[in-house]
Amino acid sequence: MANRFAQFPILKHLVRWLILIIPVSVTIGSIVALFLWLLHQATGLRFQYPWLLFLLPLAGIAIHLIYKTIGRSSEKGNNLIIDEIHEPGGGIPGWMAPVILVCTVITHLFGGSAGREGTAVQIGGSIAQIFGKLLRLNADDTKIILTSGVAAGFGAVFGTPLAGTIFAAEVLSVGRIQYTSLLPCLFAAIIGDATVTAWGIHHTTYHIGVTAGVQELIPGYISPAFSLLIKVVPAAIAFGLAACLFSVMVHTLRNLFLKLIRTSWLIPVAGGLIIILLTFITGSTDYLGLGVDPQYAGSVTISSSFKAGGADTWSWLWKTVYTTITLSSGFKGGEVTPLFYIGATLGNTLSGILDAPAGLFAALGFIAVFAGATNTPLACTIMGVELFGSEYMHLFAAACFIAYFFSGHSGIYSSQKIAVPKI
Amino acid sequence: MANRFAQFPILKHLVRWLILIIPVSVTIGSIVALFLWLLHQATGLRFQYPWLLFLLPLAGIAIHLIYKTIGRSSEKGNNLIIDEIHEPGGGIPGWMAPVILVCTVITHLFGGSAGREGTAVQIGGSIAQIFGKLLRLNADDTKIILTSGVAAGFGAVFGTPLAGTIFAAEVLSVGRIQYTSLLPCLFAAIIGDATVTAWGIHHTTYHIGVTAGVQELIPGYISPAFSLLIKVVPAAIAFGLAACLFSVMVHTLRNLFLKLIRTSWLIPVAGGLIIILLTFITGSTDYLGLGVDPQYAGSVTISSSFKAGGADTWSWLWKTVYTTITLSSGFKGGEVTPLFYIGATLGNTLSGILDAPAGLFAALGFIAVFAGATNTPLACTIMGVELFGSEYMHLFAAACFIAYFFSGHSGIYSSQKIAVPKI
Repeated sequence: MANRFAQFPILKHLVRWLILIIPVSVTIGSIVALFLWLLHQATGLRFQYPWLLFLLPLAGIAIHLIYKTIGRSSEKGNNLIIDEIHEPGGGIPGWMAPVILVCTVITHLFGGSAGREGTAVQIGGSIAQIFGKLLRLNADDTKIILTSGVAAGFGAVFGTPLAGTIFAAEVLSVGRIQYTSLLPCLFAAIIGDATVTAWGIHHTTYHIGVTAGVQELIPGYISPAFSLLIKVVPAAIAFGLAACLFSVMVHTLRNLFLKLIRTSWLIPVAGGLIIILLTFITGSTDYLGLGVDPQYAGSVTISSSFKAGGADTWSWLWKTVYTTITLSSGFKGGEVTPLFYIGATLGNTLSGILDAPAGLFAALGFIAVFAGATNTPLACTIMGVELFGSEYMHLFAAACFIAYFFSGHSGIYSSQKIAVPKI
Repeated sequence: MANRFAQFPILKHLVRWLILIIPVSVTIGSIVALFLWLLHQATGLRFQYPWLLFLLPLAGIAIHLIYKTIGRSSEKGNNLIIDEIHEPGGGIPGWMAPVILVCTVITHLFGGSAGREGTAVQIGGSIAQIFGKLLRLNADDTKIILTSGVAAGFGAVFGTPLAGTIFAAEVLSVGRIQYTSLLPCLFAAIIGDATVTAWGIHHTTYHIGVTAGVQELIPGYISPAFSLLIKVVPAAIAFGLAACLFSVMVHTLRNLFLKLIRTSWLIPVAGGLIIILLTFITGSTDYLGLGVDPQYAGSVTISSSFKAGGADTWSWLWKTVYTTITLSSGFKGGEVTPLFYIGATLGNTLSGILDAPAGLFAALGFIAVFAGATNTPLACTIMGVELFGSEYMHLFAAACFIAYFFSGHSGIYSSQKIAVPKI
C-alpha cells in the first residue's frame, strides 16, 4: 500500500499531459494525413504509368543516397524509436520524419512492396522528440512523449486509436504490458486520428460479411460457434508460422544481401531488379505497393480477400517474397500493411481448405499475422474490434494469441526486449 | 533472440492445455450455473418474504460458524487465490467452493448487500486446485491452472469470457500484464461461459440507448465526439475517487469492527443490525442484495440507471455504505456487482450534472468504478465492449484508465502486488 492520497500528483500529471499532448498529436496527425494523401497520389500515378516500375532500381539508389547524406542514424527506423524509449540516449534525428516520408513515397511510386506503419511510427516518434527537446523534458517524460508519439502515429495511419495506444505499450517488450504512459498515449492516439479525419482523409473499411451459413462440425453435438473456434485453432497456427517465416526471411535476406553485394548502393538496385523479374514471373502487378487499392477489376487486394475466391492460393507467399526483398534491400515503408495483406490472403486460402467463411478468416489473418510478427496480440485483438466490430472478438483474441505463441521469439523489431519468454 | 524453432514445445503446450482445461472449465461453468440459479431463487424469496431481512443478524452468525468450523483458511477468499498463484504454498482448501457458495446464497437470501464475482472466482480457483492435485501438476503448471480457474469463474458469472481472461492476467499485479497463461485462460473462460449458457442460464443485458441528441460544447467548433470525451474526464475522475472511497471504507470498517467488538461472532450480528437500521432510515429495500433484479416497478437497479431519472442522487453513496458494512462484517459474496451498481448510479447522477446521455454515463461508471477498485482497466474496457458493444470503446478505455489512476494504490484485493507504481 503506497501513499493513499496520491490523487493530486495524478491530477497534475493528467492535466499536464492532456495539454502537452494536443500540439504534439495535432502535428503528427497532420503530417500523417499529408503522408496518406501523398501515398494515394503515388499509387494512382503508378497505376497510370506502369513503366514507373522499371525505374525501381534507380529509386533504390536515390533512397540509399538520401539515407547516406541526410538520414544517417535514422536508417535504424522503428528500432531506433524503441531503443530511445527503453533508454533515452543519442536522440532521434529531427530529419527522420521528412526523410522517411519522402523515401516511403518514392518506394510506393515505383512499385516497391511495403507498408506505411513504419513511416507513421517514425513520424510520430521524431515529432514527439522535437517537442520533448523544446519542452526540456527529463528522461522519464521523454519516454512518455515518445511512446505517445508512436501511439499517435499508429492510431492516425490506420484509424484505430485504441489499437495504437495498446500497440505503443505492447511493442516495447515481448510478453508484458506496462501502464505508465497509457493515458497520454490514448489522448495522443485519439487526437491524432481525429486530426487525420479533420483533414478529410478516410480509411478503407472492410466487411466480414454474413457467416450465417456456418456448417456444424458434428451436427447436433457441437454448436456452430464451437465449430468455428475449432477451425480457428489450425488457421491461427498457420498465421503464426507465416509471421515467423516473414521475420526470418527479412533478417536472412538482409544478411544475405550484405554478404553477397559489397558495394552498398548496388543492394537496392539488385532488390529493384528482383522485384521487376518477379513481376514478369508472376505476370501480375498485384503484389507491388500497398495492396489496398485495386489496379484493375479483379486485382487481389486486402479488400478482395474478404470474399470467397478473392485471392489466389499462393498470394500470401508471393506477397511475403515481394515485401521481404523490398524491405531487406533498403526500400522504405513498413511491414504492417503487407502483413495485413499476407494474413488476409492466407485466411482466404485457409477458409477454402477448412470450409469456413472467407470474410471472417481473412479478418482473422489480417490481425493475427501482424500480431505474430510484432508480438502485439492485445493491440491486434483490439484493432480487430475497431476495424470489424465486436461480434467475433473472442475469435480475434484466440487467433492473435495463438499466432503470437507460434511466431517464435524473432519478431520484426530486433530492439524489442524479451520481458517474459513465450513458454 | 531465443531459440527460433520453439514451435514444437508450444504446440505440445497448446494441445495439452486445450485438453486439460475442458473438464476443469466445464465443472466450473456448471457450478457457477448452479450458483447463479440459486442466487436468483434466493433473491426471489427475499422479494416474496421481506421479513427475511430481520433474520440477517442470525444469518451472519451461521456464516461465521461455517467459516470457523469448515471454512477456516478459505476465509481469506480471493486474496488466498491470488497468493497461491503468486507463490503456490499451503494450497486452496477443497471446501472453499461449497462453503463460499452456500454462504453467498445465505447472504443474499437475508438481504446482505454483496456481489457474486468473489464467489465465482473462488469456485474457479478451488476447482482448478482440485484438478491440479489430481493431475499432479508442478508449481508452474499449478499457477496456470489456477489462473485459468479464475478466468473461467469470472467469465462464466458475468458472461464475458474475454474480460475474464484479461481480468485473471491483470488482477495479480498492479500496472502490468503477463502473457504466459493467456491461452489456457481464454479457452477456460470461453468454455466456462458456454457451459453456463448450455445450462439455460442467461445474463442481464444492458442498453446504452441512443445518444444522438448529444449537445455540442461550443457549437461549430468542437465536434460532439470531443464534447463527450471532455465530459468523460471529470466523470472518470469521480469514478476513480468512488472506487478509492469503497476500498478505503472496506479496509477501515473491517479494522473498526475488530477493534470495537471483541467477540468475533457478534461482528456479523452488528453488521446485520446496521443494515436493518439503514433500511428503515432510507425507507428503501433497493440497496439490499445484488441490485440487478427490481423488487417493484420503479426500484433503483443497475438496469434502471441506464435511463435518465432511473437512480437517486445519492444511490451510489448508499450502496457504498450498505456493501462495505455487509462485507466488512463477515458476510460473503464479492464486491463487483455492487461496484457495477455504484458506478452505474453515480454515472446516472453525473449525467444530469454534466448534461450527458444517462445510458452512456451509467455504462462508463459500471466498468470504471470496478476498474479503479480492482486495478484492472484493460479487462474492464473489454468487458464494456462485451456488454455494451464497440461503438463507445474509446470512451470506455478513457474512463477505465482515468479511474484506474485516480483510485490510488489501495484496491480491494490486498494480495495484489504493485508491479509498477501508478505514477
